[in-house]
Amino acid sequence: MFLTLKKGATRSQLDYICKKVRKIGFRAHISRGAKKTVIGVIGENAILARDIFESMEIVEFITPISKPYKLASREFKKENTVININGIKIGEKQIVVMAGPCAVEKKDLLIKIAREIKKAGAKVLRGGAFKPRTSPYSFQGLGEKGLKHLAAAKKMTGLAIITEAMTIDQVKLVEKYSDIIQIGARNIQNFDLLKAVGKSKKPVLLKRGIATTIKEFLMSAEYIMSQGNYKVILCERGIRTFEQSTRFTLDLNAIPVIKKLSHLPIIIDPSHGTGVRDYVAPLSKAAIAAGADGLMIEVHSKPEEALSDGPQSLLPKDFCLLMEELKKVAYAVGREI
Amino acid sequence: MFLTLKKGATRSQLDYICKKVRKIGFRAHISRGAKKTVIGVIGENAILARDIFESMEIVEFITPISKPYKLASREFKKENTVININGIKIGEKQIVVMAGPCAVEKKDLLIKIAREIKKAGAKVLRGGAFKPRTSPYSFQGLGEKGLKHLAAAKKMTGLAIITEAMTIDQVKLVEKYSDIIQIGARNIQNFDLLKAVGKSKKPVLLKRGIATTIKEFLMSAEYIMSQGNYKVILCERGIRTFEQSTRFTLDLNAIPVIKKLSHLPIIIDPSHGTGVRDYVAPLSKAAIAAGADGLMIEVHSKPEEALSDGPQSLLPKDFCLLMEELKKVAYAVGREI
Amino acid sequence: MFLTLKKGATRSQLDYICKKVRKIGFRAHISRGAKKTVIGVIGENAILARDIFESMEIVEFITPISKPYKLASREFKKENTVININGIKIGEKQIVVMAGPCAVEKKDLLIKIAREIKKAGAKVLRGGAFKPRTSPYSFQGLGEKGLKHLAAAKKMTGLAIITEAMTIDQVKLVEKYSDIIQIGARNIQNFDLLKAVGKSKKPVLLKRGIATTIKEFLMSAEYIMSQGNYKVILCERGIRTFEQSTRFTLDLNAIPVIKKLSHLPIIIDPSHGTGVRDYVAPLSKAAIAAGADGLMIEVHSKPEEALSDGPQSLLPKDFCLLMEELKKVAYAVGREI
Amino acid sequence: MFLTLKKGATRSQLDYICKKVRKIGFRAHISRGAKKTVIGVIGENAILARDIFESMEIVEFITPISKPYKLASREFKKENTVININGIKIGEKQIVVMAGPCAVEKKDLLIKIAREIKKAGAKVLRGGAFKPRTSPYSFQGLGEKGLKHLAAAKKMTGLAIITEAMTIDQVKLVEKYSDIIQIGARNIQNFDLLKAVGKSKKPVLLKRGIATTIKEFLMSAEYIMSQGNYKVILCERGIRTFEQSTRFTLDLNAIPVIKKLSHLPIIIDPSHGTGVRDYVAPLSKAAIAAGADGLMIEVHSKPEEALSDGPQSLLPKDFCLLMEELKKVAYAVGREI
Repeated sequence: MFLTLKKGATRSQLDYICKKVRKIGFRAHISRGAKKTVIGVIGENAILARDIFESMEIVEFITPISKPYKLASREFKKENTVININGIKIGEKQIVVMAGPCAVEKKDLLIKIAREIKKAGAKVLRGGAFKPRTSPYSFQGLGEKGLKHLAAAKKMTGLAIITEAMTIDQVKLVEKYSDIIQIGARNIQNFDLLKAVGKSKKPVLLKRGIATTIKEFLMSAEYIMSQGNYKVILCERGIRTFEQSTRFTLDLNAIPVIKKLSHLPIIIDPSHGTGVRDYVAPLSKAAIAAGADGLMIEVHSKPEEALSDGPQSLLPKDFCLLMEELKKVAYAVGREI
Repeated sequence: MFLTLKKGATRSQLDYICKKVRKIGFRAHISRGAKKTVIGVIGENAILARDIFESMEIVEFITPISKPYKLASREFKKENTVININGIKIGEKQIVVMAGPCAVEKKDLLIKIAREIKKAGAKVLRGGAFKPRTSPYSFQGLGEKGLKHLAAAKKMTGLAIITEAMTIDQVKLVEKYSDIIQIGARNIQNFDLLKAVGKSKKPVLLKRGIATTIKEFLMSAEYIMSQGNYKVILCERGIRTFEQSTRFTLDLNAIPVIKKLSHLPIIIDPSHGTGVRDYVAPLSKAAIAAGADGLMIEVHSKPEEALSDGPQSLLPKDFCLLMEELKKVAYAVGREI
Repeated sequence: MFLTLKKGATRSQLDYICKKVRKIGFRAHISRGAKKTVIGVIGENAILARDIFESMEIVEFITPISKPYKLASREFKKENTVININGIKIGEKQIVVMAGPCAVEKKDLLIKIAREIKKAGAKVLRGGAFKPRTSPYSFQGLGEKGLKHLAAAKKMTGLAIITEAMTIDQVKLVEKYSDIIQIGARNIQNFDLLKAVGKSKKPVLLKRGIATTIKEFLMSAEYIMSQGNYKVILCERGIRTFEQSTRFTLDLNAIPVIKKLSHLPIIIDPSHGTGVRDYVAPLSKAAIAAGADGLMIEVHSKPEEALSDGPQSLLPKDFCLLMEELKKVAYAVGREI
Repeated sequence: MFLTLKKGATRSQLDYICKKVRKIGFRAHISRGAKKTVIGVIGENAILARDIFESMEIVEFITPISKPYKLASREFKKENTVININGIKIGEKQIVVMAGPCAVEKKDLLIKIAREIKKAGAKVLRGGAFKPRTSPYSFQGLGEKGLKHLAAAKKMTGLAIITEAMTIDQVKLVEKYSDIIQIGARNIQNFDLLKAVGKSKKPVLLKRGIATTIKEFLMSAEYIMSQGNYKVILCERGIRTFEQSTRFTLDLNAIPVIKKLSHLPIIIDPSHGTGVRDYVAPLSKAAIAAGADGLMIEVHSKPEEALSDGPQSLLPKDFCLLMEELKKVAYAVGREI
């Protein structure tokens, strides 16, 4: 249930309501829009407490919510959520490009790549220190050593850092080094991990699972938000279909659908989505044209030597060319890079 | 098997080879590129006749083809195929927009819509006279009367016409009135119908089936081309996946994949692909950014009264606004509308 | 709308109502059950004529039907439909096995296979004279010559015949030779073809398309039934999913779902469904255990020489062993072969 | 790489080889078959050490393994794996039925259900103490209290217990109370959790993810086995497809496919697979007919009061009837319950 307050509600009125909400066993989530303040009363059967709030003078109206995701919904928050990472704003006019190698490997190489993507206009460096691999016999990532390489690259370039936490244990560690915590597609319904990052202060980039409906995707975001962390960035990275000419089917339909249902920013990962280098550029342009708030692109100086996902990585020089083209498309749809 | 001829091959040399090909039981298809002429020798086990051609002075080299589609492949023809319809060129710099109602209904309404889409910049009027409907109790189209309405609209506006032929019988009729023959998604593997339009002189727009792989899509194009009609326009209109928030999942990955594998033009139908009016604009822009050669968009003045697919039709005024936005995106990727 | 008549309704009362139905522009379909007679009043907005029938003494009650398939639904007909083909009953206690080669090739070989499957207990000989092939360069079937081979095999063995009609033109020809007309998966929404076989007196076996929902499957059956041919046998033959270890995913869930929604018999084709010989036996047993009314199995004496789908065909001796095993499973679930 | 030893290899010869394997940086896994002993040499590029073992007298031959799953493959172990749980053998002639409520709720109710399923012939009691729920606002399970209820039910009935561990933390706890550790479909690629249960001495039931290919499924089993726990039971519980008339599409094709590729036992969960009570019985019979080694079925005395998945639970009396029918089907395929 959402309580929309009358204009001019004071801080103490707000506090009074929130206390009341908690007293009767629910959680209160506040959304302060430009015009209205909305309080989400969250918990099973919250609607049964409707009477209590209906009688309050300052409550303008009450909205029962049938959608299973509440805090992630446009009903709860009309305005787009903007997430600020050291001055980089995700969800506003600027399209934020995150780039880097699939896995963090050698430190020097990482710094070299970081410098090149920064020069090309990327704002965030991506790279996995912990790698989820389908086979137990594949390279599993450098662990904390990889995180330190990322921190070094950040220091040298000023880029923000994003890297994945695969387990609850890793959350603390990733939080320490990274500006954004990535939750991978395989963990989209690892609910305890979602709750754990829900308690973090750091923004979370949540990747859609390969068989996750958009409704379920928003419910996984809700898990994070229900713990108080509202800084969730959604990321589409390909769904599994019958078509085998690309590794996955990058679902760009998700962009307008999510924009309609939710206020959270959405970014696109065409590298994992297609698994083919040649398709990254056209689908990156398409993503921006469709309204994405950002891109996540794999870049590697020596794709043929990469320990993970080489065939889909762009060379720095190709990434640089792509960024120039993306700027034009962004401009054409009223955005910028 | 493809025979690539040496530069300067004469007409009579070409004829000689083609005669030879037919004499030994195969079909000869000629692709004259800017630099090279390639002869496709088509038929089962054509490669066994390799020796015969290898000894010919004018044959530069022979390429065995393992792909099941041959005439539709980039190997057969390096340059993009450009299809000329009364001066409208599909497959070149210009992006061709086809628009109109799902089904042809009243004549006056059709002409009104035709005028509006023409003003907005569309080049081709779409509208179904024969309607494939999942339920036998739904509106099935006006038949030849609908074709006559389309012809009237063409006369009034100068727009080219595209409409669907659902059966072999209808091909003759559609051919008579329409500039492009559309083959619907449900007929993607109606091989006798494909052969029938393969014998037509009119260009064919072939819609991908909802569970058709891109490889199968190109093989269906091959059916048409194998009969001598090389004027095939491919059209992606959504595939069936687990996701239910859109009617189908419009597969924009298909654009770069097809551009890589084939020389045929590819256009996108976001109206049927998503089934939701609000998603048509963002996905139209995305399609152009990804490299599509055209769009097919449903436009209806009174969507609420449409006998078929109203909820996905744009109003003429919204179509007009969209065209303005599309021009900017086209320009950003070096194309024009 | 369905009109359920009171017990003891006479022939002339029935005729009177049917005349009335036609007079006001609808079609009347009669289902005589053991206890009740139901008249389906079919046509768009039939329900608006409710008043006319409500006032009739002999009409016990009226059921508005919201499902898009009406004649195919359990609401229209409570009892299972039983289809009688020269004494072979499909939809009763006996499980009917249809077997034979994918495509009809040599006459002698066909007769040999027919004798062997008959000995093993099959009741119907299958074999394609017209072959829908994904590539235009593959073997396309013998045409009428193939139908004559089938007729010869029927004469020699007494087996009933089933073969596919791919086009409206072929329906007449197939009807002449075959006891059951097969409509292939690719033609599941070839609505004109469905209507054409709906006018035939011969039973129709309708194969589910690879991306056809069960609801759409029943609507395609409805197309046939709406023309007066109620003898429709449904056939599940695999749907397209992400899993690639079988050619398609044979969907045995369809058996109980269809049994719940419809009165029509359902048979299973594990040969096309999996595309792998070794999986035919376990899935045939599973189909019977789940309640299927029959099986369609590919059998070929020399699978390695088959012009179509050799890798999934059973050898006659393996088919014979399988039939012995199937008898036990059938018995275990109260059926027989 | 697999080393197949000559007949009569002694214990000390075996030890010598295993020491050698570890010394050069790989892991040794031993499979003692009835006739041959095979040593799996596991690790990236193990094949490069081929020369070392080829020169050993006792090594009969060496098999390089290209499949990404090695220990789970039929190549590694010809004989079916049989897992013994307090005398209940999974993977042999007997089909093991696991039954119980989706979530553990009240203790008395659980014991009542346990007694009823035991009487009907079930061998294992299932019930979730930790519940993965798509919405953060749904019932999340009783936690350790639920485990204690399961232990009480075990004490009263002698049934073995299976329950899910959702996180690494829970593994220790679940291990303490449960005879089998269940890994849920959502955790199929939670690789750290797989490794954690790979170090347990308890058997693990691994549920296939809704978009997991069979190859990936076996690789997830490999993660567990690579840590030394070979007691892995595979469980198919429905995949996500376009069909929406069942909650998932139960994939019975997986049974023969897995039997061909792997030696591990496979059981089927038709309750979660279909999500519809009426479909559980026919698909249970089908699973047994197709060769499944067991079933997992939801049973609840008051499905309408269940806090989770009530609509798919059988009543104890219906479960009892089903077990009688299953016995007949099992007998028909040479198995028993």
